[in-house]
Amino acid sequence: MAHFADRLMEAVERKRSHVVVGLDPDYALLPPDLLAAQEGRLYESSDCRKVAAYREFLFSLLPRVAARSAAVKIQLAYFEAAGAEGWRLYQDLVGEAQSLGCLVIADAKRGDIGSTAEAYARAHLEVAGADALTVNPLFGTDGLEPFLRRVRQTGKGVFILVKTSNPSSAELQDVELAEGGSLSQRLARLTAQWAAGAIGASGYSSVGAVVGATHPEQALALRRLMPGVPLLIPGYGAQGGRAPDLAGLFDSQGLGAVVNSSRAIIYAHRNRPGNWLDAAEAELEEMRESLWRVARAR
Amino acid sequence: MAHFADRLMEAVERKRSHVVVGLDPDYALLPPDLLAAQEGRLYESSDCRKVAAYREFLFSLLPRVAARSAAVKIQLAYFEAAGAEGWRLYQDLVGEAQSLGCLVIADAKRGDIGSTAEAYARAHLEVAGADALTVNPLFGTDGLEPFLRRVRQTGKGVFILVKTSNPSSAELQDVELAEGGSLSQRLARLTAQWAAGAIGASGYSSVGAVVGATHPEQALALRRLMPGVPLLIPGYGAQGGRAPDLAGLFDSQGLGAVVNSSRAIIYAHRNRPGNWLDAAEAELEEMRESLWRVARAR
Repeated sequence: MAHFADRLMEAVERKRSHVVVGLDPDYALLPPDLLAAQEGRLYESSDCRKVAAYREFLFSLLPRVAARSAAVKIQLAYFEAAGAEGWRLYQDLVGEAQSLGCLVIADAKRGDIGSTAEAYARAHLEVAGADALTVNPLFGTDGLEPFLRRVRQTGKGVFILVKTSNPSSAELQDVELAEGGSLSQRLARLTAQWAAGAIGASGYSSVGAVVGATHPEQALALRRLMPGVPLLIPGYGAQGGRAPDLAGLFDSQGLGAVVNSSRAIIYAHRNRPGNWLDAAEAELEEMRESLWRVARAR
Repeated sequence: MAHFADRLMEAVERKRSHVVVGLDPDYALLPPDLLAAQEGRLYESSDCRKVAAYREFLFSLLPRVAARSAAVKIQLAYFEAAGAEGWRLYQDLVGEAQSLGCLVIADAKRGDIGSTAEAYARAHLEVAGADALTVNPLFGTDGLEPFLRRVRQTGKGVFILVKTSNPSSAELQDVELAEGGSLSQRLARLTAQWAAGAIGASGYSSVGAVVGATHPEQALALRRLMPGVPLLIPGYGAQGGRAPDLAGLFDSQGLGAVVNSSRAIIYAHRNRPGNWLDAAEAELEEMRESLWRVARAR
């Protein structure tokens, strides 16, 4: 399989899109007409009803978002909360997105000791078949090695948590170290080392980093510590991140970063009249244009 | 439901056991006679064959370990690697262990922003129904709150990663902070704060901490920073931790810590002749006795 970062940068240029659409199925937020169409159908259990609704929602959405997004990001938590059938839907969704020409990032934030990390890497990058996985680096190098080995050998990608988008991220990630700088800055330097062995023709590594859009100045400093590391930027829109704040995170060709939005896109029908699929597509298109403009102005 | 830490301490005293048996199903390590008995049976796929073997292995093992262990710990990675059927087995296993009077710790090491952490907490503590969950604290307080809320309101427990058992844990967890002490020590102090609102009649909180057995002196220092926080200690046996090194982690009544062993117990047939179930039970009994002696000598 081709190098992950090369495939990601190619997708950004071909689709003229830095957007990663996050798939977070939440029953309470599903479009009312989709739920109404389910009325009267019989299901074995309420879990089966829920997963059937998720399936219809996400499989309807995918063809609309595939052409306009660099990748989709599947948030595992929501699939786990739907049990075994939720897990089956996750696996089916990976294949469906890929068949539509869309890269798939499994947002699982896994991290454990080496032997266990090996099982997680197999679960998500082989059995489910995602193109990339988000990972938590708290265990250090030996816990990351099973993921990094697949990056080097099989064209898969990882995104390592360096600075998350939530308010409490400061408690541990911003803490000042005796050596100088913050824990996130140390993580950024380590990520640059982990990334060094996996640089592709695009100049970017298949070892990427998660850096939140909600802390623009910190993000810029982290960007500089990790040249060649592609960024996956959460926190856009609903969490407060805006396109102009992200300008400095793209390189001179407008590459090197992709930006996630989940609820603001897939549940756009809450704020836009008309068909829910049209609402999602319109919201995505606005975000795509805003980011394209900012990135290409570099 | 009764307070988690009270239930855990009660189980330790009633079963005279500090052992947490880790359930890590690994097809390559299953007992040869169990695999031989599968020969000739037809399955829809090799995944189904694998999960059927795991099911027989774990459901045979549970009645043997339930009476001699304070809890069982289900390592999610191995179940995820078996796909949707693996997830179903995880859920079934939680119920089966509980029906045998055994507490269940889901070793999932989840961690994310608040809305996603809410879905993880629901998935493991409600849908799957585990008694406790291991969590990764990198996101800070707001990412932990959905777990802590269930601890306070529903008698569930969490174990927060404070110092892991793997060699590379030093890279981030031992890093010296400008304020003095290591990141793990800061994590221990934060854990003591998170734990303060959930102390039970036993004097222990349902907010516990994971502290590896492979770093005995560090573990002792961390123990002192978190009085009232029950410890879940991995790294015993196969990873090098020994019972005498753990003496200082128990309180004057021999309580306050439980110790996990996975492969050394459930795959004991590799080193002991005879029936694989007897081998596992004998290995567990030796560990139980060693720890009981050390803890009660306090």
